[in-house]
Amino acid sequence: MQLKADILGIDSGGKPIVFLNKLDADEIGVTASGRIRITSKNNTITALVGIATTVKKGFVGISEEVLKILKLKQHTLVDIDIAPFPKSLQFIHNKLTGKRLLYDEIHEIVKDVVQGNLNESEISAFVTTLHLQGLDLDEATSLAISMVNTGKKLNLHKKIIVDKHSIGGVPGDKTTLLVVPIIAAAGLLIPKASSRAITSAAGTADRAESMMPVDLDIEEMKKVVQKCNGCIVWGGSLELAPADDIFVKTEYSLYIDPLLLPSIMSKKKAVGATHLVVDIPTGRGAKMKSTGESDLLAKDLIELGRRLGIHTQCVITHGEQPIGYSLGASLEAREAFGVLMNKTNVPDLVDKACHLAGSIFEMVGKKNGYYLAKEFLRTGKAEKKLREIIALQGGNPKMNLDDFKIGQDIVQVKAKKAGQVLWMDNNALVEIARAAGSPKDKGAGIVLNKKLGDKIRVGDVLFTIHAEKSRKLSRANDVLHDLEPIGVGERTEMFIHKVKESPVVRRSFVLDR
Amino acid sequence: MQLKADILGIDSGGKPIVFLNKLDADEIGVTASGRIRITSKNNTITALVGIATTVKKGFVGISEEVLKILKLKQHTLVDIDIAPFPKSLQFIHNKLTGKRLLYDEIHEIVKDVVQGNLNESEISAFVTTLHLQGLDLDEATSLAISMVNTGKKLNLHKKIIVDKHSIGGVPGDKTTLLVVPIIAAAGLLIPKASSRAITSAAGTADRAESMMPVDLDIEEMKKVVQKCNGCIVWGGSLELAPADDIFVKTEYSLYIDPLLLPSIMSKKKAVGATHLVVDIPTGRGAKMKSTGESDLLAKDLIELGRRLGIHTQCVITHGEQPIGYSLGASLEAREAFGVLMNKTNVPDLVDKACHLAGSIFEMVGKKNGYYLAKEFLRTGKAEKKLREIIALQGGNPKMNLDDFKIGQDIVQVKAKKAGQVLWMDNNALVEIARAAGSPKDKGAGIVLNKKLGDKIRVGDVLFTIHAEKSRKLSRANDVLHDLEPIGVGERTEMFIHKVKESPVVRRSFVLDR
Repeated sequence: MQLKADILGIDSGGKPIVFLNKLDADEIGVTASGRIRITSKNNTITALVGIATTVKKGFVGISEEVLKILKLKQHTLVDIDIAPFPKSLQFIHNKLTGKRLLYDEIHEIVKDVVQGNLNESEISAFVTTLHLQGLDLDEATSLAISMVNTGKKLNLHKKIIVDKHSIGGVPGDKTTLLVVPIIAAAGLLIPKASSRAITSAAGTADRAESMMPVDLDIEEMKKVVQKCNGCIVWGGSLELAPADDIFVKTEYSLYIDPLLLPSIMSKKKAVGATHLVVDIPTGRGAKMKSTGESDLLAKDLIELGRRLGIHTQCVITHGEQPIGYSLGASLEAREAFGVLMNKTNVPDLVDKACHLAGSIFEMVGKKNGYYLAKEFLRTGKAEKKLREIIALQGGNPKMNLDDFKIGQDIVQVKAKKAGQVLWMDNNALVEIARAAGSPKDKGAGIVLNKKLGDKIRVGDVLFTIHAEKSRKLSRANDVLHDLEPIGVGERTEMFIHKVKESPVVRRSFVLDR
Repeated sequence: MQLKADILGIDSGGKPIVFLNKLDADEIGVTASGRIRITSKNNTITALVGIATTVKKGFVGISEEVLKILKLKQHTLVDIDIAPFPKSLQFIHNKLTGKRLLYDEIHEIVKDVVQGNLNESEISAFVTTLHLQGLDLDEATSLAISMVNTGKKLNLHKKIIVDKHSIGGVPGDKTTLLVVPIIAAAGLLIPKASSRAITSAAGTADRAESMMPVDLDIEEMKKVVQKCNGCIVWGGSLELAPADDIFVKTEYSLYIDPLLLPSIMSKKKAVGATHLVVDIPTGRGAKMKSTGESDLLAKDLIELGRRLGIHTQCVITHGEQPIGYSLGASLEAREAFGVLMNKTNVPDLVDKACHLAGSIFEMVGKKNGYYLAKEFLRTGKAEKKLREIIALQGGNPKMNLDDFKIGQDIVQVKAKKAGQVLWMDNNALVEIARAAGSPKDKGAGIVLNKKLGDKIRVGDVLFTIHAEKSRKLSRANDVLHDLEPIGVGERTEMFIHKVKESPVVRRSFVLDR
C-alpha cells in the first residue's frame, strides 16, 4: 500500500524504525516490532515497526535513521509491504532447538543484528540461547570472523602487531596504562583499543581519558600508532565489531556473557594483532573463581587465537582484591602515572604489568621478559613513551600528578574492630565507587588505605571515598551502610553470613570488554 | 536530579516509557531500556528509558502511559533517580542457571511483566529460558495462578461451569461454533473466551465476529452468559491473564511456546471453569505430530487442571488436514452455521464437535454424550441457541447463509495430474489464505473442493482462493507459485522432496491461544 512520509525528527537509537497508525498496520498485517519493506524511487529498506497513535492513518512516521537511507521529503508517497521473515530468525530458532550453526548462518544473524533487522527481543533470545546451548569453538570462530567482517579494520601492514587484553573482573586494574608504554618503548606496535566501564568503576578508556582524548576514529588511531608504536583509545568510536556492542546490552541486563570469546578475539583480529597476551584475574570476587576454570578458558582462547591466526598466551593473576590502592578513573590514572614517574610505589601493580609485558616480549623472541619490562619502567623510557602517546592523542604531554582532578568531597571509613584485613569484597567496593559517581564522574572513586593481610587497630582508616558532588557522596554513604567491603578480624574467625527465610538478593555481576 | 516534564503525546504501547537527552541519561547513570524512578508530588513510578535527541537537556519526555499515572502538566519539575534493578531480573537469571522458581519469585516476574517494569529484551530472555530449561508442573501451576491473579476474573457463582479449548494447529477448525450452542442449549454454563488468529487463517473470535460483535468487556460477557448460558467473545478485551498477551509476542517471533500449559489453564481458571475438555489435534501438519506426544501433553494438562481445581479431560483428534471444507473467518462461520441449520453436510466437523460436546456431557454426569450432542444439532436447538447468543452479543439473530460476506475475487486451483489426494499441507494452505487477506479481511480464505482420499482427474478443481481485494489475490497467487498445498498421485509414489546444498528455509510454526 502507499503511505505519505511524515518526518518525525526522532532518532531511534541506530535501528531503522518507522511508525504506523494501528489501522494501517492491521491492513498491512504487521504488529509492533514486526518488519516492513519501504520503497521510494528504487531505494528499498527493511524497517522495524512501531505503532503510534500520533501518526495519522495514511501516513508513515519516518525516523532519522530511515530518512538518512531513503532521503525522503515531507509527504512523499512511499510503497509499503510486509517484509518476509528474516532467514536469520530461522537460524536462531535452529540453535534454540540444539542445532549447530554454520558460518553462513551465523553471518546472516550478525549481519541482521548490525543492520537493525532484528528487534531487541529477537537479539535477546539469541544471546540467551547461546548462553544455554553453549557455542562450540567452530561457532565461536564463525562469530568472531563474522563480527570482524561486519565492522571496520585497522591495517598497519606490519609483520608483528601485539595486543594485551584482560577478561576483567578485578577492580582498580590500571595495568594497561603501564603495559602499552613499556611495549611501545621497546619498538613493538601495540594499537590498544580499550573499553569504558560497563559494570565496573572504570574501564581503561575511562582511565586514559583523564590524561588525553580517547575517542579517536580509526584513521586517527592509525596515525598515532605509526608515529609512536602505541596508543590507548576507546574501542567504541572505532566501529570494530559493532555487533558486539549490541549483544553486550542484552548480556548486561541478564548477567550473562556467552559471547566472551568471540567478542575479545574479534576486536583483536580487527586491529590486526598477531601476538596477544590475555590476563585472566582469578579468585573469589573476580570473574573467574578458580584456576581450573581459568585454565579451561585459557585453552579455548589459545585455540580460537590459533584459528584466527593470532599467537595467544594467557596469564592467570591474583584477583582477590583490587590492584594497587585506587578505584575510579582519575585516581587510577594518577596511580599508574606515579609508578611510571617512579614517584609512587605500587608493587602488585608493577609485578602484574611486568609479567604481562614480559610475556609479550618472550612471545616475540626477547629473553628475560619480566626484567626487561622492569627496566623500561626504571629508566623512565615507559614514562617518556606515554607522554608521547598523550601528545599525539591531543593531551598535555607535560602533565604532572597534580593535574589529575580528584573529587574533593570525601568520607573516611574507619575500622570498628582490630585484627587483620581478612578479605576484601570487590563487588561492594565497586558498588560504592559507582554510587559516588564512577565511571561518569572521573574524579570519583575509592582510595584503599589498607589491603589484604595488613594489621588493623580500631579507628584506622580502611579506605576513603572521593566524590565530585556531595549528593553522590551521600548516595555512596547510603550504599556503604548495607555493605561490608573490607573484612577485619582474627584469622580464626569462621563465620561468613547467615541465610534466613526470604534471603536478600544481591546483584553481583562483572561484565567488562 | 530534577527535570522538566515535556509531554510528548506519544503512546508507547502500554509500557511506562520516558525519553531522556543523552547527557541527562549519562548524568543519572542510565542507558536506553534501563529504568528510572520519577517522583512528582508523592506519586512515584518506575519507567523504562528511551534516549531521544529531540528531548532537550533538562527535560524528560513523558509518554501518555506515564502521564496517566503521574498527571503532570507541561514543564512541571519532577525528581528523577536511577531505579534499583528489579528483583524479578535476579529470578530470571536464577532460572537461567537452572534453578527452580518458587511461587513468590514467579509472581514477582509476572507482576513486573504486566506493570511494564521489564523491557522486551528481558521478557524475551525469560521466555527463551523457559523454553530451554523447561518448567516443571509446580512452576507451571505457579505461573497459571500468578497470571490469574494479575488479571480480571469472571464470577458467575455457579457450581458447574464448563469450558472447551483447542491447542490449535489444524486449519479450518470451527468446532467451537458448534460446541458452545450445543452445551448452552443443554442448560450448562459455557462462558467461552476465544482468541484471534496469530499464525493461522482465523481464530474462533475472528469466525464469531462475522456473525456478531465479540469485543465485550467482562461485565457484558457476564450478562450474556447469565441470560442464555453461553457466549463466544474475544478474550483480548477481557483482560484475563494479561501477562500471557505479552509473553505471546516473544513466542511468536521465536516460534516457541513454552507457556502453553499455564497460558491455557490461567484463562480457564479466570472464567471460573470447573470442567474442561481440551482438544489436541494430532498429525503431520498439526502442532502435535504423534499421539505419543499428545498423550503426554494431555497428562500434564489434566494434572495442572487438578491442581487448579478444574476437572480436565483431553480428546485427541485427527489433524492431518483442515476440518471441513473452508479456511478463513466468514467462510468458516458460514460452514458452521450451515451445519447448525441442517443445510450443509460436513461429517468430520460434526463428528469432532459431537465428540467434544459429548465428553463435556459425560464429565458432568449425562450419559451417551456423543448422541446427545448430535440430537441438539438435529433438532435445531443448537441453532436456536446460537441465534440467542448472536442477539445478546449485538448481532442479527435472523441472519442467513447469504448474509456472510465472502470475497468475490477468486482463483480456482486445478489438478495437473490424476490420482488421489495423498496429503494436504496445512501450513501451505494457511500461508495462501493469509496472503489472500486472512485474518484481517474476513471474506478472504480458501474453499476446499477435495479432501484426503478423493479421486482426482486432470483439471478437477482442488481448491478455490477467495479475496476481498485483487491486490491480495495476486499476492496469494504469488505465494501459491512456490507451494504444493495438495499432493495428488498414486498411492505407490514414494518421493517427498530433495535436500540440496543451501536448503531453502521455510517458516512453519503454529501459535494459537
